[in-house]
Amino acid sequence: MTASPLGVTAPAGFRAAGVAAGLKASGKPDLALVVNDGPLRHAAAVFTSNRVAAAPVHWSRQAVSDGRADAVVLNSGGANACTGALGFQNTHATAEHVAQVLGVSSGDVLVCSTGLIGEQLPMDKLLPGVDAAAAQLGTGSGFDGGSAAAAAIMTTDTVSKQSGFAGTGYSIGGMAKGAGMLAPGLATMLVVLTTDAVVEPAALEAALRGATRVSFDRADSDGCMSTNDTVILLASGASGAVPDPDEFAAGLTTVCTDLALQLIRDAEGASHDITIRTFNAASEADAEEVGRAVARSNLFKTAIFGQDPNWGRVLSAVGTTKAAFEPENLNVWMNGVQVCRSGGVGEDRSLVDLSGREVLVEIDLAAGGAEASIWTNDLTHDYVHENSAYSS
Amino acid sequence: MTASPLGVTAPAGFRAAGVAAGLKASGKPDLALVVNDGPLRHAAAVFTSNRVAAAPVHWSRQAVSDGRADAVVLNSGGANACTGALGFQNTHATAEHVAQVLGVSSGDVLVCSTGLIGEQLPMDKLLPGVDAAAAQLGTGSGFDGGSAAAAAIMTTDTVSKQSGFAGTGYSIGGMAKGAGMLAPGLATMLVVLTTDAVVEPAALEAALRGATRVSFDRADSDGCMSTNDTVILLASGASGAVPDPDEFAAGLTTVCTDLALQLIRDAEGASHDITIRTFNAASEADAEEVGRAVARSNLFKTAIFGQDPNWGRVLSAVGTTKAAFEPENLNVWMNGVQVCRSGGVGEDRSLVDLSGREVLVEIDLAAGGAEASIWTNDLTHDYVHENSAYSS
Repeated sequence: MTASPLGVTAPAGFRAAGVAAGLKASGKPDLALVVNDGPLRHAAAVFTSNRVAAAPVHWSRQAVSDGRADAVVLNSGGANACTGALGFQNTHATAEHVAQVLGVSSGDVLVCSTGLIGEQLPMDKLLPGVDAAAAQLGTGSGFDGGSAAAAAIMTTDTVSKQSGFAGTGYSIGGMAKGAGMLAPGLATMLVVLTTDAVVEPAALEAALRGATRVSFDRADSDGCMSTNDTVILLASGASGAVPDPDEFAAGLTTVCTDLALQLIRDAEGASHDITIRTFNAASEADAEEVGRAVARSNLFKTAIFGQDPNWGRVLSAVGTTKAAFEPENLNVWMNGVQVCRSGGVGEDRSLVDLSGREVLVEIDLAAGGAEASIWTNDLTHDYVHENSAYSS
Repeated sequence: MTASPLGVTAPAGFRAAGVAAGLKASGKPDLALVVNDGPLRHAAAVFTSNRVAAAPVHWSRQAVSDGRADAVVLNSGGANACTGALGFQNTHATAEHVAQVLGVSSGDVLVCSTGLIGEQLPMDKLLPGVDAAAAQLGTGSGFDGGSAAAAAIMTTDTVSKQSGFAGTGYSIGGMAKGAGMLAPGLATMLVVLTTDAVVEPAALEAALRGATRVSFDRADSDGCMSTNDTVILLASGASGAVPDPDEFAAGLTTVCTDLALQLIRDAEGASHDITIRTFNAASEADAEEVGRAVARSNLFKTAIFGQDPNWGRVLSAVGTTKAAFEPENLNVWMNGVQVCRSGGVGEDRSLVDLSGREVLVEIDLAAGGAEASIWTNDLTHDYVHENSAYSS
């Protein structure tokens, strides 16, 4: 969607690497390091709201609370969740090791983990992996440090995800893996965003919350929230450019939306990418609630897999919400065909073509002027297969 | 679970029938009639809370509001939901026709429908079906009117569901089909309960709400609520026995629980019947919320299908709730093996045998003395197949 340089090392002031530390049985890359060389080390982050949060989430939430981060270390091959005191000690030891190697404070090192819950990380492999990554730190866009890092955080992702945005005198880059909300076998969504713009921590946090609210938060495949979900934004200030706040917010939202849609498109086991656009809602919150209710209906999701324009299942899901609407005023379109008019039968459902990968469901609540879109996937045989076979 | 006479005609004062009216393409029975011959015609009912409710739900909710019902007519082969003004007129016409045939008031005839949403019922077949059913009304238990009615309300049910309870000088009978909450292809849960006890409408309603709250409301396979779900309780008073309120409440709960578990066991596409028992909760509401969160997690449900004792997915679901608990105090057993101890790894997961159909997940919140159980099914290939192929 963009011709901008891609990835976390596209903005100036960042180095990154990805290596195979041996955490994955497959021998594929499994440890990534992203370093902010400054001059600024401003940071903000948002974390899973799951109360059973992994050790690295507890650590990083505290570490980023002062608005500063010098580095992020990320591992696949183990979530370090439900691992007790030893799990937290291992996260702490990882941050200490990164800090030593880079010559920074461990309190400025953020940690992210993804993989199976309930198993301790093999620290005898992880710590040497940090050394190897530190020795390979690279800059730039293309086949670079950022790309290596993006590859090392993949779990069952089939492609690595990177994005970028060219602002006025600065740029934004990013990488993502996952996501837990899309296909639970993928377990966790990890995102690192970087910018060389000059932005204060409070403004970074506001922009990040604004961007994630309308991007990652609206990618909702099964309503399951991971113990490890983390989105981190680092600012180096290396461009010297102080961005227009609106442009920066829009740019960050563009990058987050691009990454969220890449996650949806790579949700393994899915055969359709579904956008549920709810409009004429009394509020944006109403529109979101309606979209989420449809996105979380297994009835609806299996119908789309079966290429069945079953609008009754859409209305049935809408009916479970508290949104403002009158049933007899509801209108629904599927891929442009109005299958439901005024709460009843509309055009012949056989006119709807659901053979392509993209599906657009539009819901008119006839209750106001707000709207929101939720992205999801269908529920397929492959989804069941992958997620029943993940850990056993 | 009971040796009591089964079905809606087991209690005295009731006749029922089931016939093939031609609503189903298969030619199978699709219209049932249950008649209360009194001397009392007391009634209570609970309906779906889905705001997109079907025409028969709107009709029956109004008709039963005076605490009286003389008959219930039920059809499979069409839900009469999202069918607009004509759909409501058809429900009205059905009630009028039943009333004429039986010589009662149409306002005392309840109507239930189940089948595909968004299609008008073929009234030229349905009304003659009412005549045929009225001509065949039968009493008793066994191969009787009640059994015929129970068969006629089946949709994709593989067996008809009946239950019964023998109280002190009176009895309770019941039939069910579905249920929407269990496997959405089944679309709708319809239940008719009968008793020959002498119970006033207000007491009937209180007993019914109490019984459904801990039975049908706790059978939760995918969180999808039908547009047509209806549970009706009719009292004829024909036994002359005024029941002890506690015994009556317990008996009604027994019948409802038995029917709910029959629905769970017949949820097509399921390979495991799962009980999620949450105990040591601060409140029953907390225990219910936790059980529901686990029951609605597609991660957890696919893991059980794969016979994978993935307790991390249980904790991940628990973590999304607002229930009182501390993550480090959580304990989880799967089929008797404590796989999670104090929020971390417990016994070796390989000790858990999930090869049988019954699965018991026990969650200790270590936060109080309340408990609740939720029943659900696993998420399987067959579930996806059936529900993707239902209407197309």
